[in-house]
Parts: sequence; structure tokens; C-alpha cells
Amino acid sequence: MDHLTIIKVGGKVLEDPVAAEQFLSAFERIKGLKVLVHGGGVTASKLQQELGQDAVLIDGRRITDEQALKAVTMVYAGLINKQVVARLNAGGYLKAVGITGVDGAFITAHQRPVGEIDYGFVGEIDDVDLGFLHTLLTHFFTPIVAPITATDKGQLLNTNADTIAQEIAIAAARKYETVLMYCFDLPGVMADINDPKSVIPHITPESYTKLKHDGKVAGGMIPKLDNAFKALEAGVFAVRICQAADIVTQGGTTVMMG
Amino acid sequence: MDHLTIIKVGGKVLEDPVAAEQFLSAFERIKGLKVLVHGGGVTASKLQQELGQDAVLIDGRRITDEQALKAVTMVYAGLINKQVVARLNAGGYLKAVGITGVDGAFITAHQRPVGEIDYGFVGEIDDVDLGFLHTLLTHFFTPIVAPITATDKGQLLNTNADTIAQEIAIAAARKYETVLMYCFDLPGVMADINDPKSVIPHITPESYTKLKHDGKVAGGMIPKLDNAFKALEAGVFAVRICQAADIVTQGGTTVMMG
Repeated sequence: MDHLTIIKVGGKVLEDPVAAEQFLSAFERIKGLKVLVHGGGVTASKLQQELGQDAVLIDGRRITDEQALKAVTMVYAGLINKQVVARLNAGGYLKAVGITGVDGAFITAHQRPVGEIDYGFVGEIDDVDLGFLHTLLTHFFTPIVAPITATDKGQLLNTNADTIAQEIAIAAARKYETVLMYCFDLPGVMADINDPKSVIPHITPESYTKLKHDGKVAGGMIPKLDNAFKALEAGVFAVRICQAADIVTQGGTTVMMG
Repeated sequence: MDHLTIIKVGGKVLEDPVAAEQFLSAFERIKGLKVLVHGGGVTASKLQQELGQDAVLIDGRRITDEQALKAVTMVYAGLINKQVVARLNAGGYLKAVGITGVDGAFITAHQRPVGEIDYGFVGEIDDVDLGFLHTLLTHFFTPIVAPITATDKGQLLNTNADTIAQEIAIAAARKYETVLMYCFDLPGVMADINDPKSVIPHITPESYTKLKHDGKVAGGMIPKLDNAFKALEAGVFAVRICQAADIVTQGGTTVMMG
């Protein structure tokens, strides 16, 4: 079974030129098959403001009306995706191909039902068809995925990049030994949020129960880790949570079943 | 030798919802392997205006400073490309994949040297590497190409879509029996610009000489036809110039060597 690394990198990393260059030059040196999933929320909000739109986010999710959908499609699939792809291809280590879930119709999604909040044109993923990604990987192209999907009727949808990375990883786990990495601006899961040296290097289901009981993981980290275990249960080999600089080291936190 | 159709469609067609739907539903019914190259200049100018930029075009070529480059990258590679791809994939006839020349680094370009006019970040094509397109076509994906390229240093460049279509056709002619089609808002090359019934169905090098001598082709049509013959001399099987509605008929003008 071939090894595949799927990396989600946050907009905050890619939108800072120094952090972006550090991340991308680490990314291109990762051995083996790999897929990058990126965001770009800060740039999208900035474009919305320049266009006189209000950028409204609730719990980090953007209220995506028709105008906001145009803005995120332009920023994610256009500007950021092509800047990243051009930079990676200039490096000479790999051949990057920028795509969205719309391309090859490899992700199908439906619009999130209206609950207490109407998020508008926001996607929830129904299915990941690995065929298109597999074709690219087999021919040594590195997919760079922007977080836009569409319904089977052709409606574009703004879709959470963390979820896209996770669903790609789960689908890929049937064909590849898959490692899913969340790369953000913290050094990993920390027992003390104020102490970067308190990174917990390994988390298993048993240690996770104890960490929660001891109050050493809390807040926003709990849904992240719950999702990590969901991915592991669905066949993903390991989930890593780390800083941009650590993607080629063994730094950060590795979540595994045992 | 497989048959390949490369179609360039103007922004004016795709930016009019009725004309766009007419064109795309004809496009999806074209038999055999095909590639679509699109523009989007009107939408790009509109975005520039909304962002408080002056959209400056000289002889139809956009003066592309850093801000204009961002706008065209967002509109061509983001908005229009993904709208077209989502629409085509919803049709169920084909699997469309939206790309630019940057993806798979399949087009390499350099920035146009500054002459009398400094066009800024505008690309001139050095090379088309057919490998990536061939991989997609071999796996029955239909490439939808937005007119953005990059240098080998990773600088994005705004690049003429007619030229991209022509250079792809010339590169493809080594592997495929290639027909290049320019699809725009006129019914073909007309002997009398005011009479849509005066379309000249076939043009050969001999008849072209006579048509020019008789003043029946003139103005903007001459560079188009000169480029068509350049493509034919480089191995392209035929060049067709027609309206959106005629891409699945034998309408319009066909330019061939004999």
C-alpha cells in the first residue's frame, strides 16, 4: 500500500508571506505522495470588505450569500490556489495541480440545511470519489485543493477546508496508508495553552480519555481531536497536528489508535 | 490518431447567461476528446471597477499591473472557470476539470518585454508541455482552461486566450488529429460584414490570397486568419471560426490547407 500524506494548512499560514514560504518549502520536501488542502478566509474577508460587503462569520463559518460565494470562489480557487501552485512548480521538486472539489466532480456536496442560522451557500460533503485524485497522484502530480465544492445540479458551495481534508483522508484510506496533518499556528496539542513546551507528542483513545478527565485538553481542541478519532476509526493511519515548520520533523502531536 | 477538438470561447458568450447555456449544452454534445479555453474580460473589468481600479485595455490587451493581475486571476481561474466546470459536470455528459497554464506547469511563459507600451504582467508563451492535458484526456476528463500562465520563477501572468488555444492546438497536433475552433458572436468569416448570409464556408491558402486581393476579408479578420494558417502550417488539421450555436453543426468558416 502506497503512503499518502494529506495536509490541511490554515489561511493564516499561507496569508503571511514569511510563514507561507517556510511552509511551502517544507511541503515540497515531504517524501512520497501528498495532497495539500488550503483555506484563505482572511483574504476572502478582505476582498468582501473592498467590495463593500459585510464579512459575517459565526463560529468561524462564513455566512455565504451570493456575493460572498463569488468572493470566496475568486479568492480560494483563483488567487490563493494559483499563487501556491505557481510557487510550488517554480521550486522544481514537484508538479502541483490546483483543483477544487468541483473539478472532476470529485467531491459532491449539498447545501447545509437552514437551522437556527442560515449559512447560505455552504456545503456539506456527501461523497469523495477518489478517481480523479488517484489519476493525478499516479502520474506524479500533486493536488492542491481549494475549499469549493458543488451540488450535482452545479451550485457552487463554500466548504470547510478541515472537513474536506478529513473526508479526502477517509476516502483515500481505502487505497493508501494515509496520514492526515492539520498544520496551523500552534506547535500541537498543548497540556498548557501558555507553554509551547507542553506539547503532547502522542494521543491514543486511552490517553485522550485521561487528558480530558484531567482537564488538559479543552475548548476548541476537543472537536478537533474528536474528528481525528473519527478519521482513525474510518481507516486513516494517523492524524498529526503541528506547526508549519514541523511538517517534515516528528514535531507536534500524533493521534493514533495505539 | 485520436481526434481532438480545442475550442476557444469568448468572454462575451460565457458572460451572457442565455448564450452561455446555449454554448455549454452544445459543447457537452461534441463527440470525442475536447478542450475548452475561455476568457472573461468583461467580468474582470467589472471587478476592477468595483475595486476602484481603472481597467485599461489597449488593442484589446489589458494593462496588467499587480492589482489587475489579482483581479484577472480571481475572475478567470476562480469565478468563471469554476462556474463553467460546475455547470458542465451537472450535465452528466462529461467530467470537466478546470485548470490554468500554471497547473502541472503545462504552459511556460515569460513576461512580455516592455516596448512602446508596458503591458505589465502579461504572458508570452514559451512552451506547451502536453503531458498533463494528455493525462487528463486519457482518463476521459475534459480540460477547461482559464488564461493564466506563470514563469518558471512562479510569477503569474495574464495571457491571451486565443494564443493559449492556438499554442495548445499546435502542441497537440503531434499526438492528435487536432481541430481548433474559435467560437465568437459572429457567424464566421463574412464577405460582407453586414450580411450574415455572406459567410465564407471554406478558406484555403489560394482562396485566402484571392479574398484579400478582392477586399472581401479585411481589418481584424486578417490577423485571425494569418494565425489560423500559422496553426495549419504547424500541423493543426483544421481551424473553424463560428458562432456558439454552430459548434456541433458544420456552420461557420473552415480554414484548411487544401
